[in-house]
Amino acid sequence: MKKAVVLLSGGLDSATCLYWAKSQGYDCYCLVFDYGQRHKKEIKHSLQIATAAKCPYFVVNISLPWKGSSLLDKSIPVPLSTANRQPPTAIPNTYVPARNTIFLSFALSYAEAIGAEAIVIGVNALDYSGYPDCRLNYFEAMQKMANLATKAGVEGKKIKILTPLLHKTKAQIVKLGTKLKVPYQYTWSCYRGDARPCGTCDSCILRAKGFREAEIADPAILDTR
Amino acid sequence: MKKAVVLLSGGLDSATCLYWAKSQGYDCYCLVFDYGQRHKKEIKHSLQIATAAKCPYFVVNISLPWKGSSLLDKSIPVPLSTANRQPPTAIPNTYVPARNTIFLSFALSYAEAIGAEAIVIGVNALDYSGYPDCRLNYFEAMQKMANLATKAGVEGKKIKILTPLLHKTKAQIVKLGTKLKVPYQYTWSCYRGDARPCGTCDSCILRAKGFREAEIADPAILDTR
Repeated sequence: MKKAVVLLSGGLDSATCLYWAKSQGYDCYCLVFDYGQRHKKEIKHSLQIATAAKCPYFVVNISLPWKGSSLLDKSIPVPLSTANRQPPTAIPNTYVPARNTIFLSFALSYAEAIGAEAIVIGVNALDYSGYPDCRLNYFEAMQKMANLATKAGVEGKKIKILTPLLHKTKAQIVKLGTKLKVPYQYTWSCYRGDARPCGTCDSCILRAKGFREAEIADPAILDTR
Repeated sequence: MKKAVVLLSGGLDSATCLYWAKSQGYDCYCLVFDYGQRHKKEIKHSLQIATAAKCPYFVVNISLPWKGSSLLDKSIPVPLSTANRQPPTAIPNTYVPARNTIFLSFALSYAEAIGAEAIVIGVNALDYSGYPDCRLNYFEAMQKMANLATKAGVEGKKIKILTPLLHKTKAQIVKLGTKLKVPYQYTWSCYRGDARPCGTCDSCILRAKGFREAEIADPAILDTR
């Protein structure tokens, strides 16, 4: 059975990716990162999702010692959402330097070590916070680099980086995941990580927009709109 | 003063890179990886070199949980050297999946966080073990990816990946480092990590060849030839 490494963040995009990969016939190995993020809820929720999907998971501990992001440094407040604002505003302070590059590098190493043929990452370049490492040209460049970086690549066994949600709206993602029976009740999106989702950060706003436009009730929360 | 992140492994190539970067006017920040490698000597030696160069260093702990390399798994013997054999033999089992990609990803994150304009890595594609992630086309692809991955790149502040030793023979590296007063007595190259260098692994053979061809005595060891 073909194997895939699936990056899980505890949010709805990566959970949808996991169930999408299973639906494509992949034997999925989940990779979860404890990178010193603002709150640990996303790790707990990632493990709930992997467990619900009956997939093995591994938590990589890579606490980033540098700061400069409100997701790494609790003294920097998470801003109110500016997602999808036209014209686009600056990249928000929730940006973590080179985060997806670090995650994909580990996934590449793991994929090669276990003989997986694909890496699945739940990025999205439509309803997103404007991070540079969520854009198509970044993933194309990452794929080219990955093909040259590994022994597997040299031997003609290229490891594909799959971004099945890249061009979907949040509503399309919610519809796809609902069809695939993703247990959205286990997902967590809020950047702040308080007892309840804040309803005002990029991640909460985009999630609420997705469920609202898909005309599906969000099973994880009562109302963040 | 312009800043550079320098990757240190404890060996002579990365030590030479650090002194080269200093000679180019960079304020150097050293990054050392504890990645679950076969022996910890390279970490100890990296710190000695950074200290001798009066540069700050940071040790990133990223113990790789996967195996499949004799540098990660002590139950797999380090092979006798096949470096520089013609025709080239297979990539040896000292290959660690996507290692340079992981190292460079962290360096990219660190460089962006501290506002560094360059990353310096002491790779070499002449006198080397044949790893795919030590070749020019790999670094070119990595640079393209890095330019797209970061907020710095989007804002026109591209972080350069410098590989000053890529096309040098080990003898040329030794000559350069000797001119730059690199404290080679603090460097450690042997893959095995016993009390004394084994003199038979790729790394020992290449080091000995470098000093021999440069007609310079290796200050770190009496005789590994």
